[in-house]
This record gives sequence, C-alpha cells and structure tokens, in this order.
Amino acid sequence: MAAGTVFLVGAGPGDPELLTLKATKVLRSADVVLHDELVSGEILRLIPTTAQLINVGKRSGKKSAAQEEINRLLVQHALMGLQVVRLKGGDPFIFGRSGEELQALREAGIQVEVVPGITAALGAAAAVQIPLTHRDVSSALIFVTGSSKHPGQIANWPDRLPSNATVVVYMPGNDLGSLSARLRSSGVSGETPCAIIASATQEAERVQITTVANLAASPELPAPRLLVVGEVVRLADASRLRQQFGGFAISAESFSASLVKVSSSSRENAK
Amino acid sequence: MAAGTVFLVGAGPGDPELLTLKATKVLRSADVVLHDELVSGEILRLIPTTAQLINVGKRSGKKSAAQEEINRLLVQHALMGLQVVRLKGGDPFIFGRSGEELQALREAGIQVEVVPGITAALGAAAAVQIPLTHRDVSSALIFVTGSSKHPGQIANWPDRLPSNATVVVYMPGNDLGSLSARLRSSGVSGETPCAIIASATQEAERVQITTVANLAASPELPAPRLLVVGEVVRLADASRLRQQFGGFAISAESFSASLVKVSSSSRENAK
Repeated sequence: MAAGTVFLVGAGPGDPELLTLKATKVLRSADVVLHDELVSGEILRLIPTTAQLINVGKRSGKKSAAQEEINRLLVQHALMGLQVVRLKGGDPFIFGRSGEELQALREAGIQVEVVPGITAALGAAAAVQIPLTHRDVSSALIFVTGSSKHPGQIANWPDRLPSNATVVVYMPGNDLGSLSARLRSSGVSGETPCAIIASATQEAERVQITTVANLAASPELPAPRLLVVGEVVRLADASRLRQQFGGFAISAESFSASLVKVSSSSRENAK
Repeated sequence: MAAGTVFLVGAGPGDPELLTLKATKVLRSADVVLHDELVSGEILRLIPTTAQLINVGKRSGKKSAAQEEINRLLVQHALMGLQVVRLKGGDPFIFGRSGEELQALREAGIQVEVVPGITAALGAAAAVQIPLTHRDVSSALIFVTGSSKHPGQIANWPDRLPSNATVVVYMPGNDLGSLSARLRSSGVSGETPCAIIASATQEAERVQITTVANLAASPELPAPRLLVVGEVVRLADASRLRQQFGGFAISAESFSASLVKVSSSSRENAK
C-alpha cells in the first residue's frame, strides 16, 4: 500500500475566514487531522465529520503530546495510506516546530506538502491596523519568541534591536517585567509604544496599548497573546481602541495626538 | 451619499489558492479594484467582471502611479459611495506602503478594513520547504528590504544580524554583490547558505541555492525575487531542488550531505 501524504497546514490566527482556499481544500479531503489546542473550534467545525480529529495540544489539565509522539503519529497514519493534515495555529514555519516534523517525515520517506498560513503577527496587525513596516518609521520587522526550549531561559534574541524596526514577540508569557527589561537591554527605549494583542481576529480579541517601560503594569490578558513593539504602534486604529477600552490604559486623546504627530512628520518626510 | 469602505487586501504570493476566504469574499463584492502589477493574472480573473479594475503598477514601459496618486484614487472612489479594494501582492502591511494609504484614508474620514495576506516569505518558505524558524538553528526571523526610499541608498538594516536568525530580504534587487557585502558587514558569515526564490508558488517558480559569499555569481532570476539567508536553508527540500536544477548551482549530493548534518545534529541537541 502506498503511503499517504502529510500536509503541514497553517490555520491562521483564529478567524476561519483567514484560512486560505488551499487549507480548506486540503482539510476537506483529509482522513486524519492532528491539531493544536490553538486551532479554534470554529475552524475545527469546518472539517468533514468523516475525518478523525486528534488533539495533540493541551486540554483540560492534561499535558500536550511531546513533539516526538506527534512525529510518530504523523508517520504512523501516513504509512497506513491515509491523507494526514497537521493543523497549526498561524503559519507552520514560524515558531511552529514544523521543521522538526518535516525532518522526521522525510527520514521516514513520507511525502510532505506545506500550506502556509496567516501568521499571528499579520493577523493581529491587520485587526488593530498597525502597519508592521512603514517607510518613515520602520524599515525592518523582527519576530522573536518569549518562550524557550530550555525552561527558565529566554530564547536567543539579536543582541541589539534597531530603533527603526518593529519587533513582534510571539508567546510573550506572563512575566512582562522581565520582557520589558530584556527589550531595554537590547537597546529599545522605554518610551517605545507597544501593543499586547490577545486572541487576535477572534470574538475574544482584546488590545492593550502601553510603552515598554510600563509593560509590567499592564493588566494580564488571556492567552494566546502577541506583543508588537515599535513606533508603528502609534498608527493603531484609535477608534477601535477607544471602543475596546473606553479610555482605559491609554487615553484616546493622547493616543490620537501621537497619531497626528507621526502622520504629519510622515508627510514632511515625503516632500 | 454615504462613503464606501476601502479594503486593503493581501493577495498572497501568487498562487490563487493562497488567497484567504475573506479576500475572495471581499473581491466578490468590490465595485473597484486597484491592483499592483505583482498581483497575478490568475487572481485578477477571479474578480467579477462587474468590478472596475485599475492597474496602478508598472505596465508596458509606463511608470507606476505615484503613491499620492493612488491615495487620491482610493479616497475619490470611496467618496463616490463605492466599495473599493486595494489589492496588493503578499500582505498589505509588510513592505507594501499600506501604512501610507491607511493614513490618507483616515484623514479623509474613510472607513478602512485590512485583510491580511500570505506574505512572500511565508509562501516561498512553504513552497521550497524551508522552515523559517527552527529550535536548533534559528530562533529569530528578520525581514528587511533591499529597496529604499532614497535611490542609491540601501534601506536601514539592523547593524548586526545575529547568527542564529533567519534573514529574508524582500526586493533584493539585481546588485547581489553589494547585498552580499552588506550581509557580511552586518556579521553574516560568507558560508551561510541562502536561497534566491523567484515567482514563489507560481508556475514560473525558480530556486537558486548558494552561499552569501557566492551570491554575486548567481545567475539572475526574473523578478519578483526573495532572498532567504540562514542555516535553515540547508533544510530546503533537496528533491525539489534537484528537479528544478538537475545538479546546477549546488550538487544534490553535497546539499543532501549538509541536510543530513543539520538533521543529525538537531537530534543530538534534542536529547
């Protein structure tokens, strides 16, 4: 019997409408879908009932399956001749450990196809209307993660984060004080604006605008969270923030004022 | 008459199946679509014939419309009460100048919605199967651009690019010698593998694997191109490269050997 193909598929940031056409097509013909806890229920409901669903993420207190166990399940189901989908939040190749799955599958001689997804940073930026790059204030975009392979140790970051870059921290964790110190020791000014975005593109979406210096004082938003750091945060849609906060955390007035500032300096530079 | 909404929409890297469900929905109800030259014909054919198509990119020797002219067209059509889509290759907020469009539209009081897209780096990485991050070799991802606001001047980059990061250069241009020098002066080793990917996810897709030191000797691939730099390039799907090149540029054997090296060292680290 010929082995099946394994599709490493990005489910996007949460909103089912942000699935790609290809992801929906692949899901429709899947025999088995191994998914993370991060994949929303709305998306799981799009999968035909004929497909077997396996949750390899954390659920109700149980630990998530180890990466080696997930690799073994992928290989095993493909060797049974089944079409297997490994469905992940965001994009499989950005902090998704799909590189390890890819290697395990290739070593077992299984054919792999990769379907990219809207990574969390892009979903969050679109939802809150923060342009991640901007000719006048940000000419580089840096993705790092707050979580690490080694517990207690922050993942490797660039030593110096440039001032004209936007930095997105995936899985920033709960210790925002340490994160703030880490950002400042990497050369980011304490006054740099930042946005904590929780459950981006989903019903439960919440946004908190603050500065690097004041990060630790932010109310804790529920996971999944993402931190966007950089001058571009001033361009976030003030009216949406106002709706969500009613002046909480950062006043709409001071926010709009800084928005106008960036906006008019942009125009001067463009001349 | 109420003003229409302007949708800033990412068309993804080229393959029409990599459009999001939301992008296709928004395109179906559009009255006017202003698109870049980068948006593929296959995607443009999905737009209902009832919608007016305006190409604001370069075509047949004519210069592309200036950004201010595009902003003016967006505002003008929205004020006529039309539903306007600004359709861009990739994601609108990554090197797409949508930040400027957003500001112009807000200043005119026009409602804006942003629909994210699969940015070129994610599309290319999925197509060539290069995991952009990997626990063992790459814990940060950096997007920069080779093009600049000021002609003759390379855009601002981080001074030092960390060795354990993947760097993606959007619009690397034709002067790969200068790009190589720039990468090395930023601390990237000349031996670092890199991939030039042209027309990612499209019929015309081509991939060239080389090293930073040998970049300038690469045959020139047609635009649009993207450069991926980092140890993760060793994980590119060797069988796909072999099909495309037949041993050209980098031999399948030496490539596979380095692939095995990364693969086995990963496993040792994981223990």
